[in-house]
Amino acid sequence: MSGNNSALLGRPSERVQTVGYGAAGTAGDAAVAAQHGAGLYAYSERVDSWVVRTAKPVSYEVRVADGLFDFERTDLLEPAAAPGKRLRRFVVLDSDVDLLHGNRIRAYFDYHDVEHVICVVPADETVKSFETAARIVEELDAFGVDRRREPLIVIGGGVLMDIVGLASSLYRRGTPFIRVPTTLIGLVDAGVGAKTGVNFNGHKNRLGTYFPADLTLLDRTFLATLDRRHIGNGLAEILKIALIKDARLFDVLESHGPLLLNEKFQGESEAGEDAAREVVHRAIQGMLEELQPNLWETKLERSVDYGHTFSPTVEMRALPALLHGEAVCVDMALTTALARRRGLIDDADARRVYDVMHGLELPAWDDLLDQPELLTAALLDTVRHRNGQQRLPLPVGIGDVTFVNDVTERELLDAVAELRVAGRGRGRDLVEGQHV
Amino acid sequence: MSGNNSALLGRPSERVQTVGYGAAGTAGDAAVAAQHGAGLYAYSERVDSWVVRTAKPVSYEVRVADGLFDFERTDLLEPAAAPGKRLRRFVVLDSDVDLLHGNRIRAYFDYHDVEHVICVVPADETVKSFETAARIVEELDAFGVDRRREPLIVIGGGVLMDIVGLASSLYRRGTPFIRVPTTLIGLVDAGVGAKTGVNFNGHKNRLGTYFPADLTLLDRTFLATLDRRHIGNGLAEILKIALIKDARLFDVLESHGPLLLNEKFQGESEAGEDAAREVVHRAIQGMLEELQPNLWETKLERSVDYGHTFSPTVEMRALPALLHGEAVCVDMALTTALARRRGLIDDADARRVYDVMHGLELPAWDDLLDQPELLTAALLDTVRHRNGQQRLPLPVGIGDVTFVNDVTERELLDAVAELRVAGRGRGRDLVEGQHV
Repeated sequence: MSGNNSALLGRPSERVQTVGYGAAGTAGDAAVAAQHGAGLYAYSERVDSWVVRTAKPVSYEVRVADGLFDFERTDLLEPAAAPGKRLRRFVVLDSDVDLLHGNRIRAYFDYHDVEHVICVVPADETVKSFETAARIVEELDAFGVDRRREPLIVIGGGVLMDIVGLASSLYRRGTPFIRVPTTLIGLVDAGVGAKTGVNFNGHKNRLGTYFPADLTLLDRTFLATLDRRHIGNGLAEILKIALIKDARLFDVLESHGPLLLNEKFQGESEAGEDAAREVVHRAIQGMLEELQPNLWETKLERSVDYGHTFSPTVEMRALPALLHGEAVCVDMALTTALARRRGLIDDADARRVYDVMHGLELPAWDDLLDQPELLTAALLDTVRHRNGQQRLPLPVGIGDVTFVNDVTERELLDAVAELRVAGRGRGRDLVEGQHV
Repeated sequence: MSGNNSALLGRPSERVQTVGYGAAGTAGDAAVAAQHGAGLYAYSERVDSWVVRTAKPVSYEVRVADGLFDFERTDLLEPAAAPGKRLRRFVVLDSDVDLLHGNRIRAYFDYHDVEHVICVVPADETVKSFETAARIVEELDAFGVDRRREPLIVIGGGVLMDIVGLASSLYRRGTPFIRVPTTLIGLVDAGVGAKTGVNFNGHKNRLGTYFPADLTLLDRTFLATLDRRHIGNGLAEILKIALIKDARLFDVLESHGPLLLNEKFQGESEAGEDAAREVVHRAIQGMLEELQPNLWETKLERSVDYGHTFSPTVEMRALPALLHGEAVCVDMALTTALARRRGLIDDADARRVYDVMHGLELPAWDDLLDQPELLTAALLDTVRHRNGQQRLPLPVGIGDVTFVNDVTERELLDAVAELRVAGRGRGRDLVEGQHV
């Protein structure tokens, strides 16, 4: 889209840079900088402040790479070693993945004569700490890497990718890394964005950076060893993308969701293969379209926050009963009820949404919803995080979203009452329960 | 300079964003993204990877603010509190500065009825660790800040600014902060760039980020309590800027250097005030011009690395005998000798350089230079850091610089021999010793 423009404008890193003086006491803006530009080198002019403006160019790739550790694939061998030198790779590997896939991963690096260290790390929320990141950095420091040729590799789920992302962003103020997500939720969600982080002082992801992996490699074959419930966990985030922006993706989940669960995205049947490939592609495409213009979250109305208003509180209270995607699904069920009551989604579509949730074996209800003070607290906490407004994403039909700021406690209670009937049984109970 | 363009092109954050498909196996570039842009939403087209391109806009201000804690100054009261709320500030204060200036700093916040916590931290290289950053974050977390209205404030030298910069960059993935440097070297060097960091695993600044303070406030009155040697320490970095790009700044150092040392930049005489103001302005201007196009150090030939090729090794070996700026000055003396031998700077100008160093009471020689293996090791280490080439900045006359990649050990030994005569005595001994 910008092919011609970019030739005219120069490279991104050159386009947006100015050093100008601002007037004293103001941070200034581009216009101020331009006005004062004439006096840039003139000391005789009385100036009180400088304003530096620049932009850090970022680019990263997300690549479909099924069968990544088949010997003929070379994704992990790029970039090449310096002439006459041996390839070297530092690999951080989830301990569960090690048990299931460690042998073939080691065989791959041996086959290609890669000097490598595999740093095996147990990864769950309890070890998502700076101490774990520091331990990884210590081992990395001992191995030593040439930052231009020897990217770190992390193989695991969302938690490990977050920890290693933080370690990579800090080591020598930024060292390239490659993500290989091994869970479905990692593949379509944590693996494609820019956020890194660890828990700190009792808070989830309180310390972190925005530092995307240079390359994320999507290998569906890892999902073969995932249990059925964790497939559902990832499908919840895929359903989120479908609801906010992709009606076709919703259709595929509706028609092929149970098949995807049964086949674990391994394409045992032709229909299953087509569905798996299309669903992954659409989910990634949708996520990237939403993330890319707002990678640093300067905009607070984010469609991808759909399902993430009440779920952080529900998930933390329910721990370890609900997986992340399951808590997100409960949130989406509640907000679908909210949307239906506001006339944003009609009865038939609301019924389809609940049916798909059931088809994906995801919960559309949790007894925690019966605690109104918990929902109010969750909403208040979200308002704090979204700078004083609810900015609550609600579905508009299937495949679109709007933001509202005026949800009341009464409205929440009514939506919960409606969902109490629907969420526990089949989706169709909801609308029939209200309207028959 | 870009006033008209920026209106045409939209805001920086909008200008450089594309999501495009790359061909399988390539990271792609803007042209590839543009070619594939037509198929952006088309699943039927077989695609294997996405390339995300964006840029993070960064702007920050460096403001002259002498007498910052005089009650009538309001720099630290911006931005205002939310309507009806009290101003709140979290302040990290160097323990030495606390002894000298803590009372007036507290009085300032009390006078303006600012709810504040002052977190006093001893700051030297031995506590430049992640643990210190974590302790600050814990106190910050207990205080709680509204990131839009309550920037952190750090008051101290380069070490403390680096630690707090790291803490700010990590807390909630980035929390605005304000720097108030209290040393001359902090004022003209560490305070105006983007680097943050702590030592780790025995390495200097091994963990860090690029995260400039939103605002740096330059208050020369803090220098009144600095000892004479630390004034010289900052003057060394100012001399660096003069040598690489500002002959006029060199002239002022030559004519008024001793006066600046005597008056500690407090402007006791009219000539001293004019010189202090001009020197600070030129040094900041020069630093920002060099830093701004290369804030993330993607370009490895950096003029501001002048004086920083041999000095890291010399400084670490000499610890605590040499201050940072003193080690830089020894490096500049050596590289001036190298440049003179190559005919890049003539005898008269080399003599002026050594005379200015002596006038600023800075060392132009250290006995560590008599260890050739140390110099060779330092050069090798620099080559590693600069991706396989020396990229050694050498002065060209006074006020310009060039980069060379072919310095030999023999050449270094000859330069040392030349400097041994010159550096120990007055600068003029050098050239006379060689040529009479």
